[in-house]
Amino acid sequence: MELNQRINSTLDDALSDNALADSPDGLRKALRYAVFPGGARVRPRLCLSVALACGDDYPEFTNSIAAAIELLHCASLVHDDMPAFDGSAMRRGKPSVHMQFGEPLALLTGDALIVMAFQVLAKGAQNIPSRLGMAMTTIANGVGAPTGIVAGQAWECESNIPLDKYQQAKTGALFAACTMGGAVASGADPEPWRILGESIGHAYQVADDLLDANGDPAIMGKPAGKDQELNRPSAVLENGQEHSVDALRNLVSQAVNSIPSCPGEKELRQLIAQESEQFVRQALNCRAAA
Amino acid sequence: MELNQRINSTLDDALSDNALADSPDGLRKALRYAVFPGGARVRPRLCLSVALACGDDYPEFTNSIAAAIELLHCASLVHDDMPAFDGSAMRRGKPSVHMQFGEPLALLTGDALIVMAFQVLAKGAQNIPSRLGMAMTTIANGVGAPTGIVAGQAWECESNIPLDKYQQAKTGALFAACTMGGAVASGADPEPWRILGESIGHAYQVADDLLDANGDPAIMGKPAGKDQELNRPSAVLENGQEHSVDALRNLVSQAVNSIPSCPGEKELRQLIAQESEQFVRQALNCRAAA
Repeated sequence: MELNQRINSTLDDALSDNALADSPDGLRKALRYAVFPGGARVRPRLCLSVALACGDDYPEFTNSIAAAIELLHCASLVHDDMPAFDGSAMRRGKPSVHMQFGEPLALLTGDALIVMAFQVLAKGAQNIPSRLGMAMTTIANGVGAPTGIVAGQAWECESNIPLDKYQQAKTGALFAACTMGGAVASGADPEPWRILGESIGHAYQVADDLLDANGDPAIMGKPAGKDQELNRPSAVLENGQEHSVDALRNLVSQAVNSIPSCPGEKELRQLIAQESEQFVRQALNCRAAA
Repeated sequence: MELNQRINSTLDDALSDNALADSPDGLRKALRYAVFPGGARVRPRLCLSVALACGDDYPEFTNSIAAAIELLHCASLVHDDMPAFDGSAMRRGKPSVHMQFGEPLALLTGDALIVMAFQVLAKGAQNIPSRLGMAMTTIANGVGAPTGIVAGQAWECESNIPLDKYQQAKTGALFAACTMGGAVASGADPEPWRILGESIGHAYQVADDLLDANGDPAIMGKPAGKDQELNRPSAVLENGQEHSVDALRNLVSQAVNSIPSCPGEKELRQLIAQESEQFVRQALNCRAAA
Protein backbone atom coordinates (compact mmCIF):
# COMPACT_ATOMS: atom_id res chain seq x y z
CA MET A 1 0.00 0.00 0.00
CA GLU A 2 1.21 3.50 -0.80
CA LEU A 3 2.57 5.48 2.18
CA ASN A 4 -0.03 8.27 2.20
CA GLN A 5 -2.80 5.71 1.92
CA ARG A 6 -1.55 3.87 5.02
CA ILE A 7 -1.34 7.15 6.94
CA ASN A 8 -4.67 8.61 5.83
CA SER A 9 -6.58 5.39 6.30
CA THR A 10 -5.35 5.09 9.90
CA LEU A 11 -6.20 8.74 10.58
CA ASP A 12 -9.56 8.29 8.89
CA ASP A 13 -10.45 5.36 11.18
CA ALA A 14 -9.63 7.38 14.28
CA LEU A 15 -11.65 10.39 13.08
CA SER A 16 -14.59 8.59 11.50
CA ASP A 17 -18.18 9.51 12.33
CA ASN A 18 -18.44 6.05 13.78
CA ALA A 19 -15.47 6.40 16.13
CA LEU A 20 -16.68 9.85 17.24
CA ALA A 21 -20.43 9.12 17.23
CA ASP A 22 -20.92 10.16 20.87
CA SER A 23 -18.90 13.37 20.58
CA PRO A 24 -20.45 16.84 20.58
CA ASP A 25 -20.96 17.92 16.95
CA GLY A 26 -18.61 20.88 16.96
CA LEU A 27 -15.70 18.93 18.43
CA ARG A 28 -16.14 16.08 15.95
CA LYS A 29 -16.12 18.47 13.01
CA ALA A 30 -13.18 20.48 14.32
CA LEU A 31 -11.09 17.36 14.91
CA ARG A 32 -11.56 16.19 11.33
CA TYR A 33 -11.04 19.70 9.97
CA ALA A 34 -7.67 19.93 11.75
CA VAL A 35 -6.37 16.72 10.17
CA PHE A 36 -8.08 16.52 6.72
CA PRO A 37 -7.18 17.42 4.07
CA GLY A 38 -3.61 17.09 5.26
CA GLY A 39 -0.42 18.80 4.25
CA ALA A 40 2.42 16.77 2.73
CA ARG A 41 2.34 14.30 5.69
CA VAL A 42 6.14 14.66 5.71
CA ARG A 43 6.59 13.38 9.25
CA PRO A 44 4.52 10.18 9.11
CA ARG A 45 5.96 9.41 5.64
CA LEU A 46 9.45 9.62 7.12
CA CYS A 47 8.40 7.36 9.99
CA LEU A 48 6.91 4.75 7.65
CA SER A 49 9.95 4.88 5.35
CA VAL A 50 12.32 4.11 8.22
CA ALA A 51 10.03 1.34 9.52
CA LEU A 52 9.93 -0.22 6.03
CA ALA A 53 13.72 -0.05 5.78
CA CYS A 54 13.94 -1.88 9.14
CA GLY A 55 11.49 -4.67 8.28
CA ASP A 56 7.99 -3.37 9.12
CA ASP A 57 7.02 -6.70 10.68
CA TYR A 58 3.90 -5.27 12.41
CA PRO A 59 2.40 -2.91 9.80
CA GLU A 60 -0.62 -1.97 11.93
CA PHE A 61 1.68 -0.94 14.75
CA THR A 62 3.83 1.04 12.30
CA ASN A 63 0.73 2.79 10.95
CA SER A 64 -0.35 3.72 14.46
CA ILE A 65 3.02 5.29 15.27
CA ALA A 66 3.00 7.30 12.03
CA ALA A 67 -0.60 8.41 12.61
CA ALA A 68 0.11 9.33 16.24
CA ILE A 69 2.97 11.56 15.10
CA GLU A 70 0.75 13.29 12.53
CA LEU A 71 -2.01 13.82 15.12
CA LEU A 72 0.50 15.43 17.48
CA HIS A 73 1.83 17.58 14.66
CA CYS A 74 -1.71 18.73 13.79
CA ALA A 75 -2.39 19.45 17.48
CA SER A 76 0.69 21.66 17.63
CA LEU A 77 -0.43 23.56 14.51
CA VAL A 78 -3.92 24.18 15.93
CA HIS A 79 -2.56 25.57 19.20
CA ASP A 80 0.32 27.44 17.54
CA ASP A 81 -2.12 29.26 15.22
CA MET A 82 -4.16 30.59 18.15
CA PRO A 83 -4.02 34.27 19.13
CA ALA A 84 -1.94 33.46 22.23
CA PHE A 85 0.85 32.42 19.82
CA ASP A 86 1.13 33.23 16.13
CA GLY A 87 -2.47 34.36 15.62
CA SER A 88 -2.45 32.83 12.11
CA ALA A 89 -5.78 33.15 10.36
CA MET A 90 -4.91 30.64 7.61
CA ARG A 91 -3.45 27.14 7.60
CA ARG A 92 -3.12 24.69 4.73
CA GLY A 93 -5.00 27.14 2.48
CA LYS A 94 -8.14 27.44 4.63
CA PRO A 95 -9.13 29.31 7.80
CA SER A 96 -7.26 27.96 10.82
CA VAL A 97 -9.25 25.99 13.38
CA HIS A 98 -9.88 28.87 15.81
CA MET A 99 -11.07 31.08 12.94
CA GLN A 100 -13.49 28.43 11.78
CA PHE A 101 -14.70 27.02 15.12
CA GLY A 102 -13.75 29.64 17.72
CA GLU A 103 -11.02 29.64 20.34
CA PRO A 104 -12.63 27.30 22.89
CA LEU A 105 -13.08 24.49 20.35
CA ALA A 106 -9.59 25.10 18.92
CA LEU A 107 -8.07 24.70 22.37
CA LEU A 108 -10.07 21.49 22.96
CA THR A 109 -9.29 20.16 19.49
CA GLY A 110 -5.57 20.39 20.17
CA ASP A 111 -6.01 18.66 23.53
CA ALA A 112 -8.17 15.90 22.03
CA LEU A 113 -5.69 15.31 19.21
CA ILE A 114 -2.87 14.84 21.72
CA VAL A 115 -4.90 12.28 23.65
CA MET A 116 -6.04 10.62 20.42
CA ALA A 117 -2.42 10.07 19.39
CA PHE A 118 -1.99 7.82 22.41
CA GLN A 119 -5.37 6.13 21.89
CA VAL A 120 -4.37 5.25 18.31
CA LEU A 121 -0.99 4.02 19.50
CA ALA A 122 -2.44 1.74 22.19
CA LYS A 123 -4.86 0.23 19.69
CA GLY A 124 -2.11 -0.30 17.11
CA ALA A 125 0.11 -2.13 19.60
CA GLN A 126 -2.44 -4.78 20.53
CA ASN A 127 -0.50 -7.53 18.73
CA ILE A 128 2.94 -6.39 19.87
CA PRO A 129 2.53 -4.94 23.40
CA SER A 130 6.22 -5.38 24.21
CA ARG A 131 7.09 -2.44 21.91
CA LEU A 132 4.40 -0.06 23.15
CA GLY A 133 6.30 1.54 26.04
CA MET A 134 9.32 2.43 23.91
CA ALA A 135 7.06 3.83 21.16
CA MET A 136 5.16 5.99 23.67
CA THR A 137 8.33 7.36 25.22
CA THR A 138 9.94 8.05 21.84
CA ILE A 139 6.93 9.93 20.53
CA ALA A 140 6.16 11.75 23.78
CA ASN A 141 9.73 13.03 24.00
CA GLY A 142 9.25 14.65 20.60
CA VAL A 143 6.32 16.75 21.76
CA GLY A 144 6.41 17.17 25.55
CA ALA A 145 8.65 18.83 28.11
CA PRO A 146 11.58 19.26 28.52
CA THR A 147 12.81 19.22 24.90
CA GLY A 148 9.87 18.51 22.54
CA ILE A 149 7.63 20.84 20.52
CA VAL A 150 5.98 22.27 23.65
CA ALA A 151 9.40 23.31 24.92
CA GLY A 152 10.15 24.82 21.51
CA GLN A 153 7.09 27.02 21.74
CA ALA A 154 7.88 27.80 25.37
CA TRP A 155 11.31 29.13 24.36
CA GLU A 156 9.37 31.84 22.50
CA CYS A 157 8.22 33.07 25.93
CA GLU A 158 11.80 33.52 27.23
CA SER A 159 13.75 36.76 26.94
CA ASN A 160 16.87 34.98 25.63
CA ILE A 161 16.19 32.34 23.01
CA PRO A 162 19.07 30.03 22.05
CA LEU A 163 18.51 29.41 18.30
CA ASP A 164 19.86 25.85 18.33
CA LYS A 165 17.88 24.63 21.35
CA TYR A 166 14.79 26.44 20.08
CA GLN A 167 14.87 24.90 16.60
CA GLN A 168 15.86 21.48 17.91
CA ALA A 169 12.85 21.48 20.26
CA LYS A 170 10.38 23.14 17.91
CA THR A 171 11.19 21.03 14.83
CA GLY A 172 14.08 18.61 15.34
CA ALA A 173 12.53 16.72 18.24
CA LEU A 174 9.45 15.53 16.35
CA PHE A 175 11.52 14.61 13.28
CA ALA A 176 13.76 12.57 15.59
CA ALA A 177 10.60 10.91 16.91
CA CYS A 178 9.71 10.02 13.30
CA THR A 179 12.92 8.19 12.50
CA MET A 180 13.31 6.71 15.98
CA GLY A 181 9.63 5.77 16.05
CA GLY A 182 10.03 4.04 12.68
CA ALA A 183 12.89 2.00 14.14
CA VAL A 184 10.86 1.11 17.26
CA ALA A 185 7.94 0.07 15.02
CA SER A 186 10.16 -2.62 13.52
CA GLY A 187 11.84 -3.66 16.75
CA ALA A 188 15.15 -1.92 15.97
CA ASP A 189 17.22 0.13 18.43
CA PRO A 190 15.97 3.73 18.01
CA GLU A 191 19.06 5.62 19.21
CA PRO A 192 21.19 5.26 16.01
CA TRP A 193 18.28 6.80 14.08
CA ARG A 194 18.25 10.05 16.06
CA ILE A 195 20.78 11.96 13.91
CA LEU A 196 18.83 11.27 10.72
CA GLY A 197 15.66 12.77 12.18
CA GLU A 198 17.42 15.70 13.79
CA SER A 199 19.31 16.56 10.59
CA ILE A 200 16.18 16.42 8.45
CA GLY A 201 14.28 18.43 11.03
CA HIS A 202 17.02 21.05 11.15
CA ALA A 203 17.13 21.21 7.33
CA TYR A 204 13.35 21.48 7.22
CA GLN A 205 13.46 24.36 9.71
CA VAL A 206 16.11 26.25 7.71
CA ALA A 207 14.06 25.68 4.54
CA ASP A 208 10.97 26.94 6.37
CA ASP A 209 12.85 30.04 7.53
CA LEU A 210 13.89 30.70 3.90
CA LEU A 211 10.30 30.24 2.77
CA ASP A 212 9.04 32.50 5.53
CA ALA A 213 11.54 35.19 4.53
CA ASN A 214 10.83 34.97 0.79
CA GLY A 215 7.80 32.79 0.25
CA ASP A 216 4.54 33.23 -1.58
CA PRO A 217 1.58 32.81 0.83
CA ALA A 218 -0.45 31.21 -1.97
CA ILE A 219 2.06 28.36 -2.25
CA MET A 220 2.61 28.06 1.50
CA GLY A 221 -1.08 28.09 2.46
CA LYS A 222 -0.24 30.45 5.34
CA PRO A 223 1.07 34.02 5.67
CA ALA A 224 4.80 34.71 5.06
CA GLY A 225 7.09 37.05 7.01
CA LYS A 226 5.80 35.80 10.37
CA ASP A 227 9.27 35.27 11.91
CA GLN A 228 10.25 38.90 11.47
CA GLU A 229 6.80 40.19 12.42
CA LEU A 230 6.79 38.15 15.64
CA ASN A 231 10.50 38.64 16.31
CA ARG A 232 11.09 34.88 16.24
CA PRO A 233 14.56 33.38 16.02
CA SER A 234 15.25 32.42 12.42
CA ALA A 235 18.36 31.01 10.77
CA VAL A 236 17.84 33.43 7.88
CA LEU A 237 17.41 36.51 10.07
CA GLU A 238 20.33 35.50 12.29
CA ASN A 239 22.88 34.19 9.75
CA GLY A 240 21.82 35.64 6.40
CA GLN A 241 20.50 33.92 3.29
CA GLU A 242 23.80 32.70 1.78
CA HIS A 243 24.87 31.02 4.98
CA SER A 244 21.42 29.43 5.37
CA VAL A 245 21.51 27.95 1.89
CA ASP A 246 24.92 26.39 2.60
CA ALA A 247 23.68 25.08 5.92
CA LEU A 248 20.63 23.57 4.25
CA ARG A 249 22.74 21.64 1.73
CA ASN A 250 25.11 20.43 4.47
CA LEU A 251 22.27 19.22 6.64
CA VAL A 252 20.77 17.19 3.82
CA SER A 253 24.14 15.47 3.16
CA GLN A 254 24.56 14.85 6.85
CA ALA A 255 21.12 13.26 6.97
CA VAL A 256 21.72 10.95 4.03
CA ASN A 257 25.13 9.90 5.37
CA SER A 258 23.80 9.15 8.85
CA ILE A 259 21.46 6.33 7.83
CA PRO A 260 22.32 3.27 9.95
CA SER A 261 22.85 -0.13 8.42
CA CYS A 262 19.48 -1.88 7.85
CA PRO A 263 17.85 -4.20 5.30
CA GLY A 264 16.41 -1.35 3.19
CA GLU A 265 19.35 1.04 3.58
CA LYS A 266 19.92 1.70 -0.12
CA GLU A 267 16.28 2.49 -0.96
CA LEU A 268 15.93 4.68 2.12
CA ARG A 269 19.05 6.64 1.16
CA GLN A 270 17.59 7.32 -2.29
CA LEU A 271 14.21 8.28 -0.89
CA ILE A 272 15.62 10.71 1.70
CA ALA A 273 17.86 12.33 -0.93
CA GLN A 274 14.90 12.63 -3.32
CA GLU A 275 12.41 14.05 -0.83
CA SER A 276 14.98 16.43 0.67
CA GLU A 277 15.86 17.69 -2.80
CA GLN A 278 12.22 18.65 -3.20
CA PHE A 279 12.03 20.97 -0.23
CA VAL A 280 15.53 22.32 -0.84
CA ARG A 281 14.47 23.23 -4.38
CA GLN A 282 11.29 24.84 -3.12
CA ALA A 283 13.22 26.93 -0.61
CA LEU A 284 15.81 27.98 -3.21
CA ASN A 285 13.26 28.71 -5.93
CA CYS A 286 11.25 31.01 -3.78
CA ARG A 287 14.50 32.71 -2.78
CA ALA A 288 15.39 33.20 -6.45
CA ALA A 289 11.91 34.57 -7.11
CA ALA A 290 12.07 36.99 -4.19
CA MET B 1 3.20 4.31 52.40
CA GLU B 2 0.35 6.76 52.82
CA LEU B 3 -1.73 7.38 49.65
CA ASN B 4 -0.91 11.07 49.22
CA GLN B 5 2.76 10.35 49.74
CA ARG B 6 2.73 7.77 46.91
CA ILE B 7 0.96 10.23 44.61
CA ASN B 8 3.01 13.30 45.42
CA SER B 9 6.31 11.48 45.29
CA THR B 10 5.54 10.16 41.78
CA LEU B 11 4.43 13.62 40.64
CA ASP B 12 7.48 15.17 42.27
CA ASP B 13 9.82 12.86 40.33
CA ALA B 14 8.18 13.79 37.02
CA LEU B 15 8.34 17.52 37.78
CA SER B 16 11.73 17.67 39.49
CA ASP B 17 14.36 20.20 38.44
CA ASN B 18 16.41 17.21 37.41
CA ALA B 19 13.75 15.72 35.11
CA LEU B 20 13.06 19.13 33.55
CA ALA B 21 16.65 20.43 33.55
CA ASP B 22 16.67 21.14 29.80
CA SER B 23 13.29 22.88 29.75
CA PRO B 24 12.83 26.63 29.27
CA ASP B 25 12.61 28.24 32.72
CA GLY B 26 9.05 29.53 32.44
CA LEU B 27 7.61 26.22 31.31
CA ARG B 28 9.38 24.32 34.10
CA LYS B 29 8.05 26.71 36.73
CA ALA B 30 4.53 26.76 35.29
CA LEU B 31 4.35 22.95 35.16
CA ARG B 32 5.22 22.64 38.81
CA TYR B 33 2.94 25.51 39.77
CA ALA B 34 0.00 23.77 38.09
CA VAL B 35 0.48 20.56 40.09
CA PHE B 36 1.93 21.68 43.46
CA PRO B 37 0.60 22.29 46.02
CA GLY B 38 -2.26 20.05 45.00
CA GLY B 39 -5.91 19.99 45.90
CA ALA B 40 -7.35 17.00 47.75
CA ARG B 41 -5.93 14.59 45.12
CA VAL B 42 -9.37 12.94 45.18
CA ARG B 43 -8.98 11.18 41.81
CA PRO B 44 -5.57 9.55 42.28
CA ARG B 45 -6.53 8.57 45.85
CA LEU B 46 -9.58 6.78 44.49
CA CYS B 47 -7.42 5.05 41.88
CA LEU B 48 -4.89 3.88 44.47
CA SER B 49 -7.65 2.71 46.82
CA VAL B 50 -9.19 0.49 44.15
CA ALA B 51 -5.76 -0.85 43.13
CA LEU B 52 -4.99 -1.71 46.76
CA ALA B 53 -8.34 -3.47 47.12
CA CYS B 54 -7.48 -5.54 44.00
CA GLY B 55 -3.98 -6.56 45.12
CA ASP B 56 -1.61 -3.77 44.02
CA ASP B 57 0.98 -6.29 42.83
CA TYR B 58 2.98 -3.69 40.85
CA PRO B 59 2.98 -0.60 43.11
CA GLU B 60 5.15 1.48 40.77
CA PHE B 61 2.75 0.86 37.93
CA THR B 62 -0.19 1.74 40.19
CA ASN B 63 1.54 4.97 41.22
CA SER B 64 2.11 5.90 37.57
CA ILE B 65 -1.58 5.41 36.71
CA ALA B 66 -2.68 7.51 39.67
CA ALA B 67 -0.14 10.23 38.84
CA ALA B 68 -1.11 10.22 35.15
CA ILE B 69 -4.75 10.79 36.11
CA GLU B 70 -3.81 13.69 38.38
CA LEU B 71 -1.61 15.26 35.66
CA LEU B 72 -4.51 15.07 33.20
CA HIS B 73 -6.86 16.55 35.78
CA CYS B 74 -4.43 19.43 36.41
CA ALA B 75 -4.09 19.96 32.64
CA SER B 76 -7.86 20.27 32.31
CA LEU B 77 -7.98 22.81 35.15
CA VAL B 78 -5.25 24.96 33.55
CA HIS B 79 -7.03 25.06 30.19
CA ASP B 80 -10.51 25.37 31.70
CA ASP B 81 -9.43 28.43 33.71
CA MET B 82 -8.24 30.26 30.57
CA PRO B 83 -10.22 33.21 29.17
CA ALA B 84 -11.49 31.08 26.24
CA PHE B 85 -13.43 29.06 28.87
CA ASP B 86 -14.19 30.05 32.44
CA GLY B 87 -11.72 32.90 32.69
CA SER B 88 -11.06 32.02 36.35
CA ALA B 89 -8.43 34.20 37.95
CA MET B 90 -8.00 31.97 41.00
CA ARG B 91 -7.47 28.23 41.49
CA ARG B 92 -6.55 26.32 44.63
CA GLY B 93 -6.30 29.62 46.49
CA LYS B 94 -3.68 31.23 44.23
CA PRO B 95 -3.67 32.96 40.81
CA SER B 96 -4.49 30.50 38.06
CA VAL B 97 -1.68 29.53 35.68
CA HIS B 98 -2.54 32.02 32.91
CA MET B 99 -2.76 34.85 35.46
CA GLN B 100 0.65 33.96 36.85
CA PHE B 101 2.52 32.99 33.67
CA GLY B 102 0.45 34.42 30.79
CA GLU B 103 -1.81 32.69 28.28
CA PRO B 104 0.88 31.22 26.00
CA LEU B 105 2.59 29.38 28.84
CA ALA B 106 -0.76 28.27 30.29
CA LEU B 107 -1.73 26.74 26.97
CA LEU B 108 1.64 24.98 26.71
CA THR B 109 1.54 23.86 30.33
CA GLY B 110 -1.76 22.06 29.73
CA ASP B 111 -0.36 20.42 26.60
CA ALA B 112 2.84 19.35 28.34
CA LEU B 113 0.92 17.92 31.32
CA ILE B 114 -1.18 15.77 28.97
CA VAL B 115 1.95 14.41 27.29
CA MET B 116 3.65 13.96 30.67
CA ALA B 117 0.79 11.77 31.86
CA PHE B 118 1.68 9.26 29.15
CA GLN B 119 5.43 9.63 29.76
CA VAL B 120 4.89 8.80 33.44
CA LEU B 121 2.66 5.87 32.53
CA ALA B 122 5.17 4.36 30.07
CA LYS B 123 7.92 4.61 32.67
CA GLY B 124 5.75 3.07 35.38
CA ALA B 125 4.86 0.06 33.20
CA GLN B 126 8.44 -0.99 32.52
CA ASN B 127 8.13 -4.11 34.70
CA ILE B 128 4.62 -5.04 33.55
CA PRO B 129 4.35 -4.03 29.86
CA SER B 130 1.42 -6.38 29.23
CA ARG B 131 -0.89 -4.06 31.19
CA LEU B 132 0.25 -0.79 29.57
CA GLY B 133 -2.11 -0.75 26.57
CA MET B 134 -5.22 -1.28 28.67
CA ALA B 135 -4.10 1.39 31.16
CA MET B 136 -3.48 3.90 28.35
CA THR B 137 -6.86 3.27 26.77
CA THR B 138 -8.70 3.42 30.08
CA ILE B 139 -7.12 6.72 31.06
CA ALA B 140 -7.28 8.28 27.59
CA ASN B 141 -11.01 7.51 27.33
CA GLY B 142 -11.52 9.53 30.50
CA VAL B 143 -10.05 12.69 29.01
CA GLY B 144 -10.22 12.54 25.20
CA ALA B 145 -12.90 12.52 22.52
CA PRO B 146 -15.62 11.34 22.16
CA THR B 147 -16.78 11.10 25.81
CA GLY B 148 -13.97 12.27 28.12
CA ILE B 149 -13.30 15.64 29.77
CA VAL B 150 -12.51 17.33 26.45
CA ALA B 151 -15.95 16.32 25.17
CA GLY B 152 -17.49 17.62 28.40
CA GLN B 153 -15.96 21.04 27.81
CA ALA B 154 -16.93 20.85 24.13
CA TRP B 155 -20.58 20.36 25.11
CA GLU B 156 -20.37 23.87 26.56
CA CYS B 157 -19.90 25.11 22.96
CA GLU B 158 -23.16 23.50 21.76
CA SER B 159 -26.51 25.29 21.73
CA ASN B 160 -28.32 22.35 23.33
CA ILE B 161 -26.47 20.76 26.23
CA PRO B 162 -27.78 17.43 27.55
CA LEU B 163 -27.10 17.64 31.31
CA ASP B 164 -26.44 13.92 31.77
CA LYS B 165 -24.00 13.52 28.86
CA TYR B 166 -22.33 16.78 29.79
CA GLN B 167 -21.73 15.87 33.42
CA GLN B 168 -20.78 12.30 32.57
CA ALA B 169 -18.13 13.57 30.14
CA LYS B 170 -16.93 16.51 32.19
CA THR B 171 -16.65 14.69 35.53
CA GLY B 172 -17.88 11.08 35.40
CA ALA B 173 -15.47 9.90 32.71
CA LEU B 174 -12.29 10.71 34.62
CA PHE B 175 -13.70 9.24 37.84
CA ALA B 176 -14.50 6.07 35.87
CA ALA B 177 -10.89 6.12 34.65
CA CYS B 178 -9.80 6.26 38.32
CA THR B 179 -11.66 3.14 39.44
CA MET B 180 -11.11 1.25 36.17
CA GLY B 181 -7.46 2.34 36.09
CA GLY B 182 -7.05 1.07 39.65
CA ALA B 183 -8.39 -2.31 38.56
CA VAL B 184 -6.09 -2.39 35.49
CA ALA B 185 -3.13 -1.53 37.75
CA SER B 186 -3.71 -4.76 39.65
CA GLY B 187 -4.50 -6.89 36.61
CA ALA B 188 -8.28 -7.02 37.29
CA ASP B 189 -11.03 -6.62 34.68
CA PRO B 190 -11.80 -2.87 34.60
CA GLU B 191 -15.38 -2.99 33.29
CA PRO B 192 -17.13 -4.00 36.58
CA TRP B 193 -15.48 -0.98 38.22
CA ARG B 194 -17.05 1.56 35.86
CA ILE B 195 -20.27 2.17 37.84
CA LEU B 196 -18.35 2.94 41.02
CA GLY B 197 -16.35 5.66 39.28
CA GLU B 198 -19.31 7.08 37.39
CA SER B 199 -21.48 7.23 40.52
CA ILE B 200 -18.78 8.95 42.56
CA GLY B 201 -18.10 11.33 39.68
CA HIS B 202 -21.78 12.15 39.35
CA ALA B 203 -22.09 12.68 43.12
CA TYR B 204 -18.99 14.85 43.08
CA GLN B 205 -20.47 16.96 40.27
CA VAL B 206 -23.77 17.45 42.12
CA ALA B 207 -21.85 18.39 45.27
CA ASP B 208 -19.78 20.82 43.20
CA ASP B 209 -22.94 22.37 41.74
CA LEU B 210 -24.30 22.80 45.29
CA LEU B 211 -21.01 24.39 46.36
CA ASP B 212 -20.99 26.63 43.31
CA ALA B 213 -24.55 27.76 44.06
CA ASN B 214 -23.96 28.39 47.77
CA GLY B 215 -20.26 28.16 48.50
CA ASP B 216 -17.74 30.39 50.14
CA PRO B 217 -14.92 31.28 47.71
CA ALA B 218 -12.45 31.28 50.61
CA ILE B 219 -13.15 27.59 51.30
CA MET B 220 -13.35 26.61 47.64
CA GLY B 221 -10.16 28.42 46.56
CA LYS B 222 -11.99 29.68 43.45
CA PRO B 223 -14.94 31.99 42.74
CA ALA B 224 -18.52 30.77 43.38
CA GLY B 225 -21.60 31.34 41.23
CA LYS B 226 -19.75 30.52 37.99
CA ASP B 227 -22.41 28.11 36.67
CA GLN B 228 -25.13 30.72 36.70
CA GLU B 229 -22.81 33.47 35.47
CA LEU B 230 -21.63 31.37 32.51
CA ASN B 231 -25.04 29.79 31.94
CA ARG B 232 -23.60 26.33 32.48
CA PRO B 233 -25.84 23.30 32.98
CA SER B 234 -26.05 22.55 36.69
CA ALA B 235 -28.06 19.96 38.60
CA VAL B 236 -28.96 22.62 41.16
CA LEU B 237 -30.08 25.19 38.60
CA GLU B 238 -31.99 22.57 36.63
CA ASN B 239 -33.60 20.47 39.39
CA GLY B 240 -33.55 22.66 42.49
CA GLN B 241 -31.64 22.26 45.74
CA GLU B 242 -33.89 19.73 47.52
CA HIS B 243 -33.84 17.35 44.60
CA SER B 244 -30.06 17.72 44.26
CA VAL B 245 -29.49 16.84 47.89
CA ASP B 246 -31.58 13.67 47.50
CA ALA B 247 -29.74 12.79 44.29
CA LEU B 248 -26.42 13.26 46.04
CA ARG B 249 -27.32 10.84 48.85
CA ASN B 250 -28.64 8.27 46.36
CA LEU B 251 -25.52 8.44 44.24
CA VAL B 252 -23.29 7.83 47.24
CA SER B 253 -25.32 4.70 48.23
CA GLN B 254 -25.23 3.53 44.63
CA ALA B 255 -21.46 3.92 44.58
CA VAL B 256 -20.89 2.01 47.81
CA ASN B 257 -23.23 -0.81 46.72
CA SER B 258 -21.60 -1.17 43.31
CA ILE B 259 -18.17 -2.25 44.58
CA PRO B 260 -17.28 -5.55 42.87
CA SER B 261 -16.04 -8.52 44.82
CA CYS B 262 -12.28 -8.22 45.47
CA PRO B 263 -9.77 -9.05 48.24
CA GLY B 264 -10.07 -5.64 49.91
CA GLU B 265 -13.79 -5.15 49.35
CA LYS B 266 -14.74 -4.45 52.96
CA GLU B 267 -12.06 -1.83 53.57
CA LEU B 268 -12.77 -0.15 50.25
CA ARG B 269 -16.48 0.05 51.06
CA GLN B 270 -15.68 1.78 54.36
CA LEU B 271 -13.23 4.17 52.73
CA ILE B 272 -15.60 5.20 49.93
CA ALA B 273 -18.44 5.74 52.43
CA GLN B 274 -16.16 7.79 54.65
CA GLU B 275 -14.65 9.98 51.93
CA SER B 276 -18.03 10.52 50.25
CA GLU B 277 -19.56 11.54 53.56
CA GLN B 278 -16.94 14.26 53.75
CA PHE B 279 -17.85 16.00 50.51
CA VAL B 280 -21.57 15.43 51.06
CA ARG B 281 -21.27 17.15 54.43
CA GLN B 282 -19.31 20.00 52.90
CA ALA B 283 -21.97 20.51 50.22
CA LEU B 284 -24.81 20.38 52.77
CA ASN B 285 -23.08 22.62 55.30
CA CYS B 286 -22.48 25.36 52.81
CA ARG B 287 -26.11 25.03 51.76
CA ALA B 288 -27.22 25.40 55.39
CA ALA B 289 -25.01 28.44 55.75
CA ALA B 290 -26.27 30.02 52.55
